[in-house]
Order: sequence, then C-alpha cells, then structure tokens
Amino acid sequence: MPIVVQKYGGSSLSTLEKIDLLAAKLAERERREDKLVLVVSAMGETTNELTRLAYELTPSPPARELDMLLATGEQQSIALMAMALHKYGIDAISYTGVQVGLKTDTLHTQAKVLGVNSDKILGQIEKGKVVIVAGFQGVTAEDDVTTLGRGGSDITAMALAVALKADRLEKCTDADGVYTADPRIYPDARRIDRLSYEEMLEMSYAGAKVLHPRAVFFAWKYRIPILVKHAHLEGQGTWIEELEENVEQPIISNVTQDATIAKLTVYGVPDRPGMACKIFETLAAQDVAVDMIVQSTTMRDVNDISFTIKRGDLARAKGALESLARDYPGMDVQAEEKVAKITLIGLGIRSDSHVATGMFRALADEGINIQMIATSDVKISCVIEEAQLKSGVRALCRKFFL
Amino acid sequence: MPIVVQKYGGSSLSTLEKIDLLAAKLAERERREDKLVLVVSAMGETTNELTRLAYELTPSPPARELDMLLATGEQQSIALMAMALHKYGIDAISYTGVQVGLKTDTLHTQAKVLGVNSDKILGQIEKGKVVIVAGFQGVTAEDDVTTLGRGGSDITAMALAVALKADRLEKCTDADGVYTADPRIYPDARRIDRLSYEEMLEMSYAGAKVLHPRAVFFAWKYRIPILVKHAHLEGQGTWIEELEENVEQPIISNVTQDATIAKLTVYGVPDRPGMACKIFETLAAQDVAVDMIVQSTTMRDVNDISFTIKRGDLARAKGALESLARDYPGMDVQAEEKVAKITLIGLGIRSDSHVATGMFRALADEGINIQMIATSDVKISCVIEEAQLKSGVRALCRKFFL
Repeated sequence: MPIVVQKYGGSSLSTLEKIDLLAAKLAERERREDKLVLVVSAMGETTNELTRLAYELTPSPPARELDMLLATGEQQSIALMAMALHKYGIDAISYTGVQVGLKTDTLHTQAKVLGVNSDKILGQIEKGKVVIVAGFQGVTAEDDVTTLGRGGSDITAMALAVALKADRLEKCTDADGVYTADPRIYPDARRIDRLSYEEMLEMSYAGAKVLHPRAVFFAWKYRIPILVKHAHLEGQGTWIEELEENVEQPIISNVTQDATIAKLTVYGVPDRPGMACKIFETLAAQDVAVDMIVQSTTMRDVNDISFTIKRGDLARAKGALESLARDYPGMDVQAEEKVAKITLIGLGIRSDSHVATGMFRALADEGINIQMIATSDVKISCVIEEAQLKSGVRALCRKFFL
Repeated sequence: MPIVVQKYGGSSLSTLEKIDLLAAKLAERERREDKLVLVVSAMGETTNELTRLAYELTPSPPARELDMLLATGEQQSIALMAMALHKYGIDAISYTGVQVGLKTDTLHTQAKVLGVNSDKILGQIEKGKVVIVAGFQGVTAEDDVTTLGRGGSDITAMALAVALKADRLEKCTDADGVYTADPRIYPDARRIDRLSYEEMLEMSYAGAKVLHPRAVFFAWKYRIPILVKHAHLEGQGTWIEELEENVEQPIISNVTQDATIAKLTVYGVPDRPGMACKIFETLAAQDVAVDMIVQSTTMRDVNDISFTIKRGDLARAKGALESLARDYPGMDVQAEEKVAKITLIGLGIRSDSHVATGMFRALADEGINIQMIATSDVKISCVIEEAQLKSGVRALCRKFFL
C-alpha cells in the first residue's frame, strides 16, 4: 500500500471552482492503488490578506497572534477540500497541524519542524480515507499555534512524507515541471525530466520558488523522490531524485535568478582574528541571514568583506553594522540595494572547469559586470546589477541550452 | 481578584475599527481591579459567509468539515482582538476552544459542552494577562473540532464563568440592556433593570435573542449574575440574577415574539396508550425539536395533537408524520407555516390569575385569534397568525406597560 503525499499551493486552490475541479480529478485517481495524503496551502491570496488585516489594525502585531490568525487560512482550505472530495464520493478527513501533532520550536512566523505524529494519519489511511493536512502550520510543546514561514507547506508535506515513509512527494503547482530557466524571461526554456537533489537544493537556495530548500534537504536526506507536476493538467513533470553523473545527463540543468537580495560591504576591517566573527555575530543578533560572502585582502592590514542578504533585512543590518563600525576607526559600511543573483545549476559543473569560464564570458559579452562569485559542486552564482538580470539570464540560456 | 467574563458578539466586532475602539475602551477599564476574560464571536457576518461558501461548494457538506471551517471565524477574531489590545499596551493572549480544553460531545454543528479546563486561563490571569477565548467552538475526546450552534458563544462564556468561578458574566451587545419589548415594534419599550433567571430563561425559549437558553440555565444553576450591556457605550444595562418576588417588582417584565416557528397538527390519532409517544418518537428520529404541544380530545375515540417546531424543520417533520399516518386509517397531517408565538414574561404571572385573562382580552380586542396556549410559572405563550404578530405585541405592551 504505497503512500503518496501531494502538496497543493494556494494558486491551485484560489477559487471554489478550482477546488471542485481538483476534487473531481482526485476522484478519478482514487481508483488506483496508492493511498493519498494531501497537504494544502491557504486559498489564493488568503495569507497575504490576513497579514494585511493584522497590519491594518496595528503596526506591530505580536508574532504569536499573527500565527493564530494566519493558521486559519489553511484550516479553511482543508475543510473545503474535504467537502469537495465527499461530493465526489471520496471519504476524506481534514486535520490541522495541531491535530497531526506537527511539533515545532517556538519561533513564531518562522518555526522549525521538530517532528510529526503519523499514527492518526496511518489510522485513517487504514480505514480507506484520503487524509488532508493543513500545510504551513504546527504547534509548540505549550500548544501554541505556529507557522513555518513562506513556502512552509512544502516542509509540512516533506515532514509527512518522511514520517509516513511515503513512496514519493508530488508537488502540484501551476507549471508542468521545473524549467531550464524562467519562461517569462527566456521563452525557449524547456521542461527538465530529472534533477538531482543537490541541483534542486542549489536552485532553491539560488532563488527558484519551486520548492522550499528545507523540503529538498529532507527529501535528499531520507531519499524520498519528488515529482513536480501541474496541479490540474496531465503531464510528465520533473523528477527530483538520486542521480548518478553520466554522459547522457546534460551538463547544465538550469539558470535561476533572484532579485530579492541586497549587498553590504564593510570596508577597512582590521586584519586580525575574530573580526569576521564579530561582524556576523552582529548580523545574527539582528536575525539577518547571510547568503554569499566574499572577503578580499587588500595591501594594507585591513580587509573588505562583502555579503548578500535579503533586501528586507538591509536597513536593519546596515544600522547594526554602522553601530559596530563606530568602535573601529577607518571601518565603513556601504549598501547596494539593487543587485541580483544569477545562478547556473548542473551536475556537470563539478567535472567541467570550462563552465565557469563560459559563464563569465557570456556575461562579459553582454557588458555585465560581476560583483561577487560563489561556487559549489553543482552551481556557480554571480551577483550583478539588478537592471542587467534579464539580459544575463538570456545570455546564459543561449550559451548553455542552444 | 474577582474575575469577570465578558462576551462580545459578531456585530460588536464587525470591522477592524470596532475592534480597535473596543480595545481602547478595554484598556481604560484594565486600570480597575477585576481580571478580564473575553469570549468573542466571529467578526460580523463571517460565520454566515463561511457557511455560504461550504454550500456553494456542495449541497451536503459533512458536519465535521463544516465545523472545521466555521471554527476559523472565531480564531481570526481572537487573534485580531489580542493584537488590538497589545496596541493599547494590554498584555493579552488568545486561545481557541481546543487550547482551553473546551470538551464537547460529538454532535457536530450542535455540540454540547461537557467541561472546560480552567488551569491555562487561570495561569495567564496570574501573570496579569487578559485572556481572550474563541466562542462557539470546542473539541471532542478524539480531538475533532466542534461548534456549539447558533448563540454558542454565550454557552462558551457561561461555561468559562462557571469553571473560573467568575464574579459575573457581562454579555456585551448592540443594546444597553433587555427591553420590555422589541423597540422596533413598540417604540415606547423601556430597559428592564433586573430580571430573574427564570424570566430570562422563559424569554430565551420564547424567542428573545438576548441570551442562549442553555447559558441562562447554567447561570441559574451556578448562581452567576449576568449583566447585559452595550459593547461600546456606557450605561446601566440589565442584571439577570436571583430575585425574590416582591411588591416593588413589576408584575410583567417583557413581551417576546418568535416568528421562526411553524405549526403541525395530526388529526384522527387513535385514543389509546402509546400513540402520542409514537408521534414524538417519529419526530425525534428526524432530529426535530418540539416546542409547544396541545392535545384536544374530541367526541369520537380519536384525538387531535398540535405542536410547534422550528420552521426549517417543517418539511422533514411533515414527511415523516405523513409516512406514519399511512399506517392508521383516518389519521391526517396538516401544516401551517406562517404562525408566530407571542409570550408574556413576568414573575407576577404565578401569583396573578388576571394576567392570562388580560392577555387573551387584549389579543381578542385586536381581532387576533389564539391557536394554541402554553403557560409556566413566569410566562404565557400564545400561537397566533404571523401577520398579526406586531399588532399583538403592541396590544400587550399597551395593556401591561402603560
């Protein structure tokens, strides 16, 4: 009795009509052998609307109460989804995050999953029911409702897939798979048949919105295959799984962009042990996550350290570092808001040193200046000016996919 | 440290502005000695809108899933109320029915409260917090979410008042108390200063929407005073409490009307033991609650039995009884949809036999025919034609309040 966990995002459930269509489609599917567990997000823009409501009432809603409010979005969609399935003769039952014991830490609005109780779900599956679980939400040891942050429903789905020892996770979305690049930027982008966990993880970190990186990480750790497919249409989709490098594998899988970042540079950092640590402790104290870091040693006995962060964290990060800089004569902080990250992903990167050269050449030929570079086994990321992002994506697509 | 439970209905919380105003008013109040526990309903028309959504999706939503959906309304309002209080510097914390362990039976959409755990709330009160609890909702022993039916937030508030040994329950509403009659029908209606539990209970059963009858029943049983007052305005309100009959007490407190009922008559019921039982068992099997019952013995060896039920139950009840009637030659069922109940309430009724005469005279003088009569120690109810209801209310008001 293989179990399949399917995750549906808000845009696949934005209207009652879409929910109804989905239920009809699932009723067809139910004639097959495997057992379904559905993880659903809030309908359409519900989460954003609830957030807006809270901030209309007060500029600083307490995070605990914000979670209490936001969690209602998924509770509504699981109930409606269950009703729709009943209408098509499918015996379905809905559960909130609390009800399936999806335990988290106490970091409201950004909580981390600690575990989930599979007994209740397995019991209902035994009875032949389709189980519908609210994504995005959990509960602390003190019984407080928490939410998992943007993309949190992916994490719920993966936590359940792991706990239920599911055959696979199907991420059902608005596209029929993962593409070589954003088709809105590069219309010739193709659907990718298969990706390795590592490639998908780098893509997620690089800004691709397909899957939450923590979900991919757990899929990889527990070797659970993911199928990214269209929520309402048939199609082959994209498999994310354990892949061996081989010659048939295309060298480069994907070009991903991220225009939600900003760059900070701290100039004149004294060249002595503990200084970098001090800088990043200062950022951590402000709850600012750092992505790429580049340190350049200059001729003097001071260094320059550049790094990228989320754009929304920029003012907070800059303020904290300026305060730190006051203690060190000659230290200075500069911010650049309008930067973007462009990333090349592919298993081929580790084995082919020409890829990096090809990337830098393609960007240079477009007149794009590279401000920072970061690499891993399966990716090369460059920070460039945001205004040049689209031409950069197109240049890399032409270079590697034609 | 006296505890006061306040209950706010949806119309007092229909907009963010009203919630904000309420929070500002409560912030003033908080300077006083007593400790506040708030029970809130869903904002404005939320419950009706969610119900509409469910029935738009499917004609027969499963009751469990309907409860899952409806419970989100109160969860949203408790979160928003907590945020608004924080804005005014009040440390408030919100809890769902599940979180305060408001246990119910499993009768979804109409669940009965079995008990509530006061520890969590008392613990937060100890810490100086204002506790906000979602009305209308509870949880079964199996952790399923339930709702308590229309007016259920009153029951939540009363269950908490009992469990917390509250000093009183304040029912905060759109009016500044209970009136001698509906001011929209009889503009000279006056606010009543004090009512006995028994009078209020009869008023609630007679169709007054002030308080849910089960809430009044528990208030009476545990001797918890209720103050009915305006949510946003100052005023004396109406106290509902233990009252001794005395000469200063007005004989008649109130005229209540109910235009949501229908009448069924079963003609030709064989005059032998067990027949009435059979009829009401048939109705109970259809989950139809019966209010007034009148049996008239005719000259033949058959009886006629008339009774009133909720208008929404009429088709179901009639169908079931027609089926039963097929087994008894001569038995026949007749329905009247457009009837209404007019009720006179007052401690004076038990001691003054002229009240009933006065009531029947006043109605007769208006040309109103009385179809059924039921009495108790503190009330006399008459079933009349719905079209004559308003003139009946005015006639009784003139007779007893001028």
